[in-house]
Amino acid sequence: MLLNGKQYTSIWLKEEKKVQVFDQRLLPHKIEIFDITSSDLAAYAIKEMVVRGAPLIGATAAYGIYLAVLEAEQKQNPEEYLQQAAEKIKSARPTAVNLFWAVERVLSKIQEETAWNKKIELARAEAQSICDEDIKVCESIGEHGLKIIEEIFEKKQGKPVNILTHCNAGWLATIDWGTATAPIYKAHKKGIPVHVWVDETRPRNQGAKLTAFELLQEGVPHTLIADNTGGHLMQHGFVDMVIVGTDRTSPTGYVANKIGTYLKALAAKDNNIPFYVAVPSASIDWNIQNALKEIPIETRSENEVKYVRGIDEEGNIKDVLICPEETPAVNYGFDVTPPHLITGLITERGIAEPNEESIYSLFPEYKK
Amino acid sequence: MLLNGKQYTSIWLKEEKKVQVFDQRLLPHKIEIFDITSSDLAAYAIKEMVVRGAPLIGATAAYGIYLAVLEAEQKQNPEEYLQQAAEKIKSARPTAVNLFWAVERVLSKIQEETAWNKKIELARAEAQSICDEDIKVCESIGEHGLKIIEEIFEKKQGKPVNILTHCNAGWLATIDWGTATAPIYKAHKKGIPVHVWVDETRPRNQGAKLTAFELLQEGVPHTLIADNTGGHLMQHGFVDMVIVGTDRTSPTGYVANKIGTYLKALAAKDNNIPFYVAVPSASIDWNIQNALKEIPIETRSENEVKYVRGIDEEGNIKDVLICPEETPAVNYGFDVTPPHLITGLITERGIAEPNEESIYSLFPEYKK
Repeated sequence: MLLNGKQYTSIWLKEEKKVQVFDQRLLPHKIEIFDITSSDLAAYAIKEMVVRGAPLIGATAAYGIYLAVLEAEQKQNPEEYLQQAAEKIKSARPTAVNLFWAVERVLSKIQEETAWNKKIELARAEAQSICDEDIKVCESIGEHGLKIIEEIFEKKQGKPVNILTHCNAGWLATIDWGTATAPIYKAHKKGIPVHVWVDETRPRNQGAKLTAFELLQEGVPHTLIADNTGGHLMQHGFVDMVIVGTDRTSPTGYVANKIGTYLKALAAKDNNIPFYVAVPSASIDWNIQNALKEIPIETRSENEVKYVRGIDEEGNIKDVLICPEETPAVNYGFDVTPPHLITGLITERGIAEPNEESIYSLFPEYKK
Repeated sequence: MLLNGKQYTSIWLKEEKKVQVFDQRLLPHKIEIFDITSSDLAAYAIKEMVVRGAPLIGATAAYGIYLAVLEAEQKQNPEEYLQQAAEKIKSARPTAVNLFWAVERVLSKIQEETAWNKKIELARAEAQSICDEDIKVCESIGEHGLKIIEEIFEKKQGKPVNILTHCNAGWLATIDWGTATAPIYKAHKKGIPVHVWVDETRPRNQGAKLTAFELLQEGVPHTLIADNTGGHLMQHGFVDMVIVGTDRTSPTGYVANKIGTYLKALAAKDNNIPFYVAVPSASIDWNIQNALKEIPIETRSENEVKYVRGIDEEGNIKDVLICPEETPAVNYGFDVTPPHLITGLITERGIAEPNEESIYSLFPEYKK
């Protein structure tokens, strides 16, 4: 998508030993490219949220394994080194299923090959495939979601379609297009007037920082709101639909996504507003039944709650303390929205109802 | 209540022409006293949120009228001056019913008196009465709410009672005790272990800044959370009850309170958690029927959403921009929670169900 008027993806292989991403900790205030030149740096980029968003975490992990294979070739015990590097990458974040999936996919691709130079080639190609496939998946989600927006637009007699989104499930969270944003970008490019309510998404403000930035760069009309505001907007008819992303979804239709998603789903239900989740199938954890109990919820540093990062009047990125220094805080990263609050899951194969029957009918190959 | 170990109220008459309050825009980072030495400064203090919270706004408005009467005595046309000053004070904030109520109460008290020196005395005494009565009201709310906390504590077999609150309906929002916090302070003083989940309450973060500060000063265990977090906590049994304040409540049981209250009420309902509103009767607008349509919702500056105020590492209060500069924002101050989500209204006369029958049975004198 567009960044300063130029087309980008969120990750790319620059040189044999250099993968590049945007340092998303600095956006929107500074546009800086971060070099990932080792598997350690790939783990660091995931853990420290230089990159974030389930699909981009997966792609970074895949390229991290590629770099680990490159490094392993130089080691005394390359297999052991590769396993350790893989463990390090997998443990960088606990919630996103794409992380484990991408690591295992690259590892299993190279497993039967014994020559390390061939392993390197295979790993690189597999990481690139993961990216290419993700772009296709996002585009498909965009096309399926576009139909929903078109249907709402028909009923609105020319008025813009107001879409609320939480966090950033945009192209900066994937490789291109985004998941929740893909239908929005498709509609905008097709000339359908859309307006996006952007939840700021405390504590890390990925909505204010990244979603607003993306929409601004693409010229999509949008308005930033505090996370507290969505319920009021829905009560007063200012929201036509909600689209959010997911970090992990169960085949029973439970959706783990950025903390606060559940509250918006409750408000949508209370006001009869359609609530959709953009779900690439790579985000479905086919092994989970009771998602409320089984999906591990990451607890991050309390300082992300106590301090807010922004830019001061002199243009410096600053963290400011918003509470008494002695006050403790807790920082859960995600919550789980139960299926009875969800209208539909927009997958790359079409729209599923949030239940096993409907989800497996689109993905029969995962049925046990 | 305690501030640096010393007992304070939130407003007091220091000298004949000097009312003092804490500058709540600077808390918790700086404890500074703000002098209100004119009716204009009273309006300014209300408008710019030097003071906030419906009861304290009312008390400040009452003292503002007292100062206006003092000023009027020196004018050519004192009645006209007083009316203009009253209009200015009443227009400082649009949502809090206490503002209009307090202004009218002082004005009507002095109406029949013709001697201006007597008017001054009456106005001062009436402003003081408003404060004294508010303290009694808050204490009564505290006693009634304490019974609810005690009942929950009995079931918890010695474990702390976890109470979630939104915004600041504490003593800094009233004169003393607070409304939503009064039951908490009463329980804490009685030795019942309570723990408070403090919503930070974006955009102005009154929870992070004021409620956390109050609880810390009184030694009440508490944890700061992002506004997005309450739903997750409730899903997992970490919240035993919710208590919030109100800026305006209808006799039909609709509650206008800080934006985001409605979302917490939805989550409490979805998880069978009691949701109480501390409602001094001065916050009930007896003229309103359909509160969702009739309560005006204040829209404040977009900059309160786009910028976050805090203290930097050098101890300076700073506003930092959290989104792209060109991104527009909208800032609704309040939302309205409908009665079907509310367990009870804790008034100074006892606990009412959120419906006309129950509310008028406690306040029959308002029945038309």
